[in-house]
Amino acid sequence: MPESIQRFDVVRFDEARPTTEIDQIAAEVPLEVRLHGQAFSVIMRTPGADVDLAAGFLLSENVVDGPDDIQSIETGQEPNVVDVRLSPACAASVPDLLGERRQVVMNSSCGMCGRRSLESLEIDRPALGVKWSVTPATIRALPDTLRDAQQTFAETGGLHAAGLFDRNGHLDASAEDVGRHNAVDKLIGRMLRAGRLPLTESLLFVSGRSSFEIVQKAFLAGIPLVAAVSAPSSLAIQLARSSGITLLGFVRDGRFNCYAGLERLGAG
Amino acid sequence: MPESIQRFDVVRFDEARPTTEIDQIAAEVPLEVRLHGQAFSVIMRTPGADVDLAAGFLLSENVVDGPDDIQSIETGQEPNVVDVRLSPACAASVPDLLGERRQVVMNSSCGMCGRRSLESLEIDRPALGVKWSVTPATIRALPDTLRDAQQTFAETGGLHAAGLFDRNGHLDASAEDVGRHNAVDKLIGRMLRAGRLPLTESLLFVSGRSSFEIVQKAFLAGIPLVAAVSAPSSLAIQLARSSGITLLGFVRDGRFNCYAGLERLGAG
Repeated sequence: MPESIQRFDVVRFDEARPTTEIDQIAAEVPLEVRLHGQAFSVIMRTPGADVDLAAGFLLSENVVDGPDDIQSIETGQEPNVVDVRLSPACAASVPDLLGERRQVVMNSSCGMCGRRSLESLEIDRPALGVKWSVTPATIRALPDTLRDAQQTFAETGGLHAAGLFDRNGHLDASAEDVGRHNAVDKLIGRMLRAGRLPLTESLLFVSGRSSFEIVQKAFLAGIPLVAAVSAPSSLAIQLARSSGITLLGFVRDGRFNCYAGLERLGAG
Repeated sequence: MPESIQRFDVVRFDEARPTTEIDQIAAEVPLEVRLHGQAFSVIMRTPGADVDLAAGFLLSENVVDGPDDIQSIETGQEPNVVDVRLSPACAASVPDLLGERRQVVMNSSCGMCGRRSLESLEIDRPALGVKWSVTPATIRALPDTLRDAQQTFAETGGLHAAGLFDRNGHLDASAEDVGRHNAVDKLIGRMLRAGRLPLTESLLFVSGRSSFEIVQKAFLAGIPLVAAVSAPSSLAIQLARSSGITLLGFVRDGRFNCYAGLERLGAG
């Protein structure tokens, strides 16, 4: 059984009389992220892809910009701990990072926890340019492709998923987590470690809703199109419009809505 | 139009050709919570019930224990700001609170943000005792009752809801927010301000999944039964079992699962 699943006894109340069974439950376990051996943050996450999660989390938190900023990410010394060593150039900032952010615990790497002010939410980067378009048919096919890849959800019904696709709708990578933000960080962290940022050729598709932070993470990773199964929030739309990101919602049942960046939707 | 909704133009891609419409979107706007005039925290929330949210958030954060700890909660001096004054007995801790927690920004009042260590997550309280039971029929009726009360969701499809019910299944109060945790904090904060904590006679029903933090908030408010539309996480089950809380999941379509506290489910 993968570490992303735990087993619990459960009593089912259906139409008939209650029955006791063993159920598969999505695991939620705290992960401590250390910088140079010192506690930096604790993330409530589903075990698996912890190194990717740590890398994506540090990108979201503006601690690192690219793979060269990370010297090593070690796991296995203690359970549920990852220790990140930054490059010599970045390491000088570690004492400040530890002192300033403190060791905050968060329920998922939401991209907001630990920020001290609203001003720190603003991203000082140019909006993403339009270089390509996708067909509506490609968008409509995303949910089925991601669902086929989503192993643990099928077994537990309890995980969010995020998938990175190319503009032809081919799944490049996927990640799962009890937290929607974590799933995105695992995905982006994996690509960061592979030296593939910025992801200017990719589409991000997430289960659930799209909030401000999902669009923010996409923007930091250079992803120009974000699609979600459910509704966006008002701030997600506003950020997508100001940052040049195409934002799609309610991508299911053969339809979808476009809230920003219509110019990336071609004919077909 | 209520402040919980904003309007955006959207292009719908259905079977036929795309059409442009004005859509109602769940509002997500940062709220700054101040303590005695100084920035304490920023919460990404749906506007509405801000005073309740601030009170529930401060309970979740262990800043206050009951209504007597709060002297006043003021809004309206500036948009999207609430200023909380604690009672003289609690006010002495304000400099420590501001210095220790810093002004962290979070995407919802998740009950974890700003915690410095895993130890701080443990709650030093006795488990809740069993005093009453509910019938399965009462549980099965919760979703329809809450849906009827959920105005904004019906209009935007984008909000989480939380409802507080009595053991006969009558809805006592409900709240909505883009964040599931915020909806629970709005509800519990309202009851705290009304002097109704601990909520030992109440059931909490939430849309979406139940994570560790949802059960934690219920425990802090003394609510002995938590029911959710979707799956629980492993840590939610573990906390429910150790704290004497009945935890139900997949409460929909006339069925549900019991993961903890079966003794509160009576016959019928």
